[in-house]
Amino acid sequence: MAGEFDLIRRHFRQATAPREDVLLGIGDDCALLAVPPGQSLAVSSDTLVSGRHFHPDTDPEALGHKALAVNLSDLAAMGAEPAWASLCLTLPEADEAWLAAFMRGFSALAERFEVQLVGGDTTRGELSISITVHGLVEPKRAMRRDAARPGDLVYVTGRLGDAGLALLARQGLYVRDGSMASLMQRLDRPEPRVAEGRQAAGFAHAAIDLSDGLGSDLGHLCEASGVGALLYLESLPISEAVRDYVAETGDWSLPLSAGDDYELVLTVPGDRQQAFEAAARHWTVPVAWVGMIEHGRGVRAIHPDGTHSEQVATGYDHFRD
Amino acid sequence: MAGEFDLIRRHFRQATAPREDVLLGIGDDCALLAVPPGQSLAVSSDTLVSGRHFHPDTDPEALGHKALAVNLSDLAAMGAEPAWASLCLTLPEADEAWLAAFMRGFSALAERFEVQLVGGDTTRGELSISITVHGLVEPKRAMRRDAARPGDLVYVTGRLGDAGLALLARQGLYVRDGSMASLMQRLDRPEPRVAEGRQAAGFAHAAIDLSDGLGSDLGHLCEASGVGALLYLESLPISEAVRDYVAETGDWSLPLSAGDDYELVLTVPGDRQQAFEAAARHWTVPVAWVGMIEHGRGVRAIHPDGTHSEQVATGYDHFRD
Repeated sequence: MAGEFDLIRRHFRQATAPREDVLLGIGDDCALLAVPPGQSLAVSSDTLVSGRHFHPDTDPEALGHKALAVNLSDLAAMGAEPAWASLCLTLPEADEAWLAAFMRGFSALAERFEVQLVGGDTTRGELSISITVHGLVEPKRAMRRDAARPGDLVYVTGRLGDAGLALLARQGLYVRDGSMASLMQRLDRPEPRVAEGRQAAGFAHAAIDLSDGLGSDLGHLCEASGVGALLYLESLPISEAVRDYVAETGDWSLPLSAGDDYELVLTVPGDRQQAFEAAARHWTVPVAWVGMIEHGRGVRAIHPDGTHSEQVATGYDHFRD
Repeated sequence: MAGEFDLIRRHFRQATAPREDVLLGIGDDCALLAVPPGQSLAVSSDTLVSGRHFHPDTDPEALGHKALAVNLSDLAAMGAEPAWASLCLTLPEADEAWLAAFMRGFSALAERFEVQLVGGDTTRGELSISITVHGLVEPKRAMRRDAARPGDLVYVTGRLGDAGLALLARQGLYVRDGSMASLMQRLDRPEPRVAEGRQAAGFAHAAIDLSDGLGSDLGHLCEASGVGALLYLESLPISEAVRDYVAETGDWSLPLSAGDDYELVLTVPGDRQQAFEAAARHWTVPVAWVGMIEHGRGVRAIHPDGTHSEQVATGYDHFRD
């Protein structure tokens, strides 16, 4: 069995994108990083625990991708440019093949977003992954959660509920004719909306990424901003598969409160609507208007049949029974 | 049982030292932090896993202290000024009393070193603590592990082996007359040598902090620098208790390869010896000369009786059997 330091050396040192602003990378007590003048440092951390956030048998390459992706999604929601990552990995055993596959997934995504792995820790225990990502953003451009204002238009990137539907299918709770491959991809390999976040930062007041579901995450944004929101469910961007599910079941919980979408919610003031929509037409990911920020509290919804929900369901809470 | 967001709000938001360079703290997708011009960012991460790094019954207040202390010790070894911390906490249950005590220990140390908690994650699972700390240091002053040169004098702060002796005593493997309280304190509440690291940064070529033991950690420094080291065991700074243990057993492993000391090893070039020692006389923590950096590889030792060890034992490796 390889020693800890051998493992680290072999798998972590050469991984990910080399960056000129890394003065000192993996292998010392600290990494040393150069933050350019005028930029603030955006920092976010997420932990994924086996059996809770992912099935113990999850393909390690997909897990390496997802663990970094959910962190980059937080940078995207701030409008920040990803730069560096620290990886704290707790492993039940020194399984070289598992670690190599995990790092392939991690590194491929890191290279695409020019992220360098600069540190971390490797310990033995129940499988768990804690990542801290660092990005750069001009303070004035940062999209804060508390900056939504009544009258802002609410947009979301991509499509909602695909990951939730894929999870139902994987659990055997939903069967659908035809291929589920693209839905599974949405669950296993979420794509952080980094470019979209950086471009939206010139227009949006506020933003948040969707980890727990639109109702819950938009609810957090509203609470932080001291506002409410009204969603038009018929405007929610959903795939044909989710549309079929809603039609069959009458259940809107997939696009509203299933997690793992990792899309962005953006609130854009009315006077920037035209400029924002013109800019967003050039994005590779579609963006859809879904509602309004309003005075009040909480997230309300208008259903396609004209009925109202006064409180959209909230998402998953690890410590609530 | 309280929800995740309630827990976080109650225990994390008000904790630790408020800093003016925190543009945005806990509660958004990212923290936003201002790095002053001329300073580089020093980043380090450490994970502590229950049953491996600490006993599951450990006093949570001491654990909160130690989890942050071992991270601040990495900043100290770089000569960096502590600034911000992210805390990823995985808990088997939402035990409010445990969490409150943990945060008391964490926050008391954070306040003393003017560290603000700016983010993290709380998840459910086997008890585990991953902390990422951020500090600031002028790049030219940073004490790198790879900068030791033959002829440098090797110094250590404080005393070696007290934490190791306390662990032996706690495990019932060593019995000693008299109070063990101050030794237990060294094991449970290590004091990061932050001020000493910052002051040493003006003199030392290289530094590392002692988490795995002098032989192992000085070995890492030597390997990174492409040099060897020679230690004079009679010069090692040890307490009366450790001196008694060595006298009784003839075993030097406590000061040489027991972990958890969190002292600093510094390598100082000969032409700065006088100035360094003059400055260090004003430190509250003693500093002792213990040996020399030399050409070659590995860490050798000369025993008090004049015999030589050609290779000092290395420390603990989580994945080596």
